[in-house]
Amino acid sequence: MDFSSKLLENAVNEVSRLPGIGKRTALRLVLHLLKQPKDNTTFLSEALLHFRNDVKKCSKCYNISDTELCEICNNPKRNSEIVCVVEDIRDVMAIESTLQFKGLYHVLGGKISPIEGIGPHNLEIESLINKVESGEIKELIFALSSTMEGDTTNFYIYKQIEKFNITTSTIARGISVGDELEYADEITLGRSILNRIPFEQSIGN
Amino acid sequence: MDFSSKLLENAVNEVSRLPGIGKRTALRLVLHLLKQPKDNTTFLSEALLHFRNDVKKCSKCYNISDTELCEICNNPKRNSEIVCVVEDIRDVMAIESTLQFKGLYHVLGGKISPIEGIGPHNLEIESLINKVESGEIKELIFALSSTMEGDTTNFYIYKQIEKFNITTSTIARGISVGDELEYADEITLGRSILNRIPFEQSIGN
Repeated sequence: MDFSSKLLENAVNEVSRLPGIGKRTALRLVLHLLKQPKDNTTFLSEALLHFRNDVKKCSKCYNISDTELCEICNNPKRNSEIVCVVEDIRDVMAIESTLQFKGLYHVLGGKISPIEGIGPHNLEIESLINKVESGEIKELIFALSSTMEGDTTNFYIYKQIEKFNITTSTIARGISVGDELEYADEITLGRSILNRIPFEQSIGN
Repeated sequence: MDFSSKLLENAVNEVSRLPGIGKRTALRLVLHLLKQPKDNTTFLSEALLHFRNDVKKCSKCYNISDTELCEICNNPKRNSEIVCVVEDIRDVMAIESTLQFKGLYHVLGGKISPIEGIGPHNLEIESLINKVESGEIKELIFALSSTMEGDTTNFYIYKQIEKFNITTSTIARGISVGDELEYADEITLGRSILNRIPFEQSIGN
């Protein structure tokens, strides 16, 4: 691209470093700012800077937080004996929005993936084992994504906590609510038959 | 969305004000910054701020520029007697990248569009008429997009400069290089037959 302005070129280059944003999209976004009041750009820049420089990781669950302990860990109404293990903070947001879970979380920060060079020591696995070891947890719910990496991570953690006397579970896999059976893949459908639940329980939900 | 951090929420809200970026995409982009060094966010914020606060409009052609006169208007090798009228700076970049045009530009800043409430006085039309009136221009090339708004704008300007003795032209409409005839729309194909050019000229290009 042939920029007539170094300032524009620089802004487009920086924006196009974001994932999924190419040069053309970056140019469209940057030129959009030019049509808006200067304040909008100031707010945007400051929001990004404040977020990046001031946001913390909760020292207990590793969710992102504005304070040392996050709102969830800090909430005395939550059951601290049930801990849900998730990959990242977007999963916390997804589960929180269901309003169905009243325990705490443990955010691993990813899953074991040899291809991407992510091993157990890159994730918050040791801190999870320590929590289990200290005896404060009664049930651990694995809520990782149902991929090979997710299953590997589940299994790796499971092997390390087997010796401690706690309940472990994984979230149910099955047909999505509202889905038609004929379009479901056979593995999901197979699992949903194997892990069927009493009918009374399904209408209780 | 249920954010556990005000800083995150604020950053996501600001990013999602950009056109075509929803809350989920904004969240993905903002969380990406968290995985990168803090410097990257600083560079991004500063690039946007500098661009928005310091970029100017060229006082002659209204292209954006870091200086009072843009690089193109300032270049003594360009032919200042031929002026290409375009909608916005992206069109200047597109034409510049062809390396086929050695004249100057005049950036209108949009096109006449009553639906969007954009009239002639919202665009740099008066300044164009003044340029033509002063006698410095010999040929005006209309390179607006081939839409109803583009044609309206062309015609509006044409009516005002008719009385001055200058050449006016529009860029050729026709079948794109590499396109198959059967997929071309009939208006484009019709125009490309009416405005056919001598064969010798086509192989000269």
